[in-house]
Amino acid sequence: RTDGARLWDSLMAMAQIGPGVRGGNNRQTLTDSDREGRLLFKSWCESAGMSVGVDAMGTMYARREGTDPTALPVLVGSHLDTQPTGGKFDGVLGVLGALEVVRTLNDLSIRTKHPIEVVNWTNEEGARFAPAMVASAVYAGVMSLDDAYAVRDAEGKTLGAELERIGFKGEEEVGARKAHAYFELHIEQGPILEAEGVDIGVVTHGQGTRWLEVTLTGRDAHTGSTPMPRRLNAGLGAARIMELVDRIAWAHAPMAVGAVGHIEVYPNSRNIIAGKAVFTIDIRHPELAALDAMAAEVRAGAAEIAEKMGLGIAIAEVNSFDPVAFDPTLVGRVRAAAQALGYSHRDIVSGAGHDACWVNKVAPAAMIFCPCVDGLSHNEDEAITPEWAKAGADVLLHAVLATAEI
Amino acid sequence: RTDGARLWDSLMAMAQIGPGVRGGNNRQTLTDSDREGRLLFKSWCESAGMSVGVDAMGTMYARREGTDPTALPVLVGSHLDTQPTGGKFDGVLGVLGALEVVRTLNDLSIRTKHPIEVVNWTNEEGARFAPAMVASAVYAGVMSLDDAYAVRDAEGKTLGAELERIGFKGEEEVGARKAHAYFELHIEQGPILEAEGVDIGVVTHGQGTRWLEVTLTGRDAHTGSTPMPRRLNAGLGAARIMELVDRIAWAHAPMAVGAVGHIEVYPNSRNIIAGKAVFTIDIRHPELAALDAMAAEVRAGAAEIAEKMGLGIAIAEVNSFDPVAFDPTLVGRVRAAAQALGYSHRDIVSGAGHDACWVNKVAPAAMIFCPCVDGLSHNEDEAITPEWAKAGADVLLHAVLATAEI
Ligand SMILES: NC(=O)NCCC(=O)O
Ligand SMILES: NC(=O)NCCC(=O)O
Repeated sequence: RTDGARLWDSLMAMAQIGPGVRGGNNRQTLTDSDREGRLLFKSWCESAGMSVGVDAMGTMYARREGTDPTALPVLVGSHLDTQPTGGKFDGVLGVLGALEVVRTLNDLSIRTKHPIEVVNWTNEEGARFAPAMVASAVYAGVMSLDDAYAVRDAEGKTLGAELERIGFKGEEEVGARKAHAYFELHIEQGPILEAEGVDIGVVTHGQGTRWLEVTLTGRDAHTGSTPMPRRLNAGLGAARIMELVDRIAWAHAPMAVGAVGHIEVYPNSRNIIAGKAVFTIDIRHPELAALDAMAAEVRAGAAEIAEKMGLGIAIAEVNSFDPVAFDPTLVGRVRAAAQALGYSHRDIVSGAGHDACWVNKVAPAAMIFCPCVDGLSHNEDEAITPEWAKAGADVLLHAVLATAEI
Repeated sequence: RTDGARLWDSLMAMAQIGPGVRGGNNRQTLTDSDREGRLLFKSWCESAGMSVGVDAMGTMYARREGTDPTALPVLVGSHLDTQPTGGKFDGVLGVLGALEVVRTLNDLSIRTKHPIEVVNWTNEEGARFAPAMVASAVYAGVMSLDDAYAVRDAEGKTLGAELERIGFKGEEEVGARKAHAYFELHIEQGPILEAEGVDIGVVTHGQGTRWLEVTLTGRDAHTGSTPMPRRLNAGLGAARIMELVDRIAWAHAPMAVGAVGHIEVYPNSRNIIAGKAVFTIDIRHPELAALDAMAAEVRAGAAEIAEKMGLGIAIAEVNSFDPVAFDPTLVGRVRAAAQALGYSHRDIVSGAGHDACWVNKVAPAAMIFCPCVDGLSHNEDEAITPEWAKAGADVLLHAVLATAEI
């Protein structure tokens, strides 16, 4: 079993870095706070006897050697970056839970056949730079390194330049470290486990996501002196498309979700009808056909709204991942570990995207969920109990051991 | 008659200061560009033999003495501040048109009984600081100096501190300069004059306006893993209220207008359901009863939307002016001047708010409109012809002369 107190102490120590304004964290990717978090993580890994490598996407791999020099490593991890108003556990639990697995193996002097590598993926959140999970996407070969380097934040800074600035543009080729398997422990970020009083979610699938960045073009004009029939109001167009997205999500209930969390209107002045609006639609569904249908309905409906209002419209897909089915063998090991340890468990589908979804394309992958209070995540109030964290780490330990082999 | 070429040259020279990104201007109030524009205006006034005073709201008064030492001045002016993406003529024409009146009187060595004061009101636009027309509101006694100093821009800077920073917090008590009359030349900012091929708008009334700043409070949550029924989506609430405002404006057609030009959602991340939205509703109507009815419908409808969605709502009125009827005698002089000069003219109601609306509370006031291309304003593409500008200045000259008396 893992040391729950040690894990909790590490979680709380990491949460000191990049504090939020309401008790959570703002440790967005490739900021100075992210750098500080990475350096703390690196020092912990080195104290635990691991050697830390960094690839060209800034992803960190802390390696504990195995007994078989020819065996591929078992990768275990998640991400240390947060949303601008994020919680202390989203991602962090998976990285520090993996570190706790290694620390426990060290305590017990257990050697594994396969090496174990604790991974911290760059920019999982996709808040500062879209798409989300960009480093694991490059790792899995679904996005090129150049495309990833070229994405820009709201200030126009590129991911590549910011990687370099914080000193984490590594030498290693992305994807060169092949994996025997990948495990990721994460908070559920939804309400199911807590509501049902279940300790462990055995994640069988992840739902698919599309992010559609819409640009509507109207005409800046005076709010007072421009007659209603002469308006080309891009802000109102955005409002109608936001309503459309909600309607489409409900129409595909109960599995679909949809929302617009990001919106900018220009020039954003109280007495100027917005001549431009840029916003991002996030739609998700666990089934590919339904997800594609939703995306098509959103595109057609948005185009119709724009046309009726005389607005120009452009839609760019800035993030896209299909639903995934995790590796049945690894999923079985997670279920068996929970069972053996006496934790209550149930199969579950992930509503959020995770690096495991991309890694699953190039190596067998599986995930473990633990509950979070009120299903709340991407919120500074995100909360879990030390017991939930420990249960997750225990299951992770056993699933990893079963895969890395003693 | 005025010198149209000289007026146009001054307009173009002022437009060099605080250039926009698309050929217009970004000379927002109390910025360094505003300061530069004020200093240029001051130097022109001094060259024209006027003495320039500044009141505690930063409003500038350039005085040409009259022949009767006991006579109150005729104030003539408008504003030099612009929207963030504003045009070259909105406000500027009224200030430089007034300057052209004085320059013409100088050329012709005409002395008037009443002094003439060319006025540049601070923060007419209300883009950086709400409310609009704040300096004339303090001048008219409808807002206190302390309240005006306390308003903040998006960065949290106060109007008072910014006045001081640019060196335009004057010594004079606001409102101490009483006026015999006030005239303001302005572009129409709407499509009527151009469409009808009319040179001059004789402004009889100004419509009333309410700005309602709405704050919706929901709950930040993950866009992927939060089931639809558990969402408290403040962004979606904002969208619904934007649609409501549009519906109410159309319901009060053809005279009403309504829009939301300013909207911020928090934390504005693609995969976070917005936990907070702040936006400003702008509704207008030329009749007070109808305007009040619209405001009541908006408040009730917004409260109902928020309640249905489980969102908290707070509404603050950040700008409010009632419809005005300008002084019939002065309006008659504007009409007579246009007639005498052979310019085609029609009576018109102002869709926008103007400093004249506030001044009208404490002194007789009137306005002159000239056409603008396609009715476009609060847009960098705002355009007028030199001929339209000159016609407006000519009518201003004659109306001022009839009032300041020779
Ligand atoms: N787990 C998580 O919050 N990932 C961020 C990407 C997304 O699902 O929006
Ligand atoms: N004339 C003008 O654009 N004034 C700004 C105040 C308003 O929004 O009407």
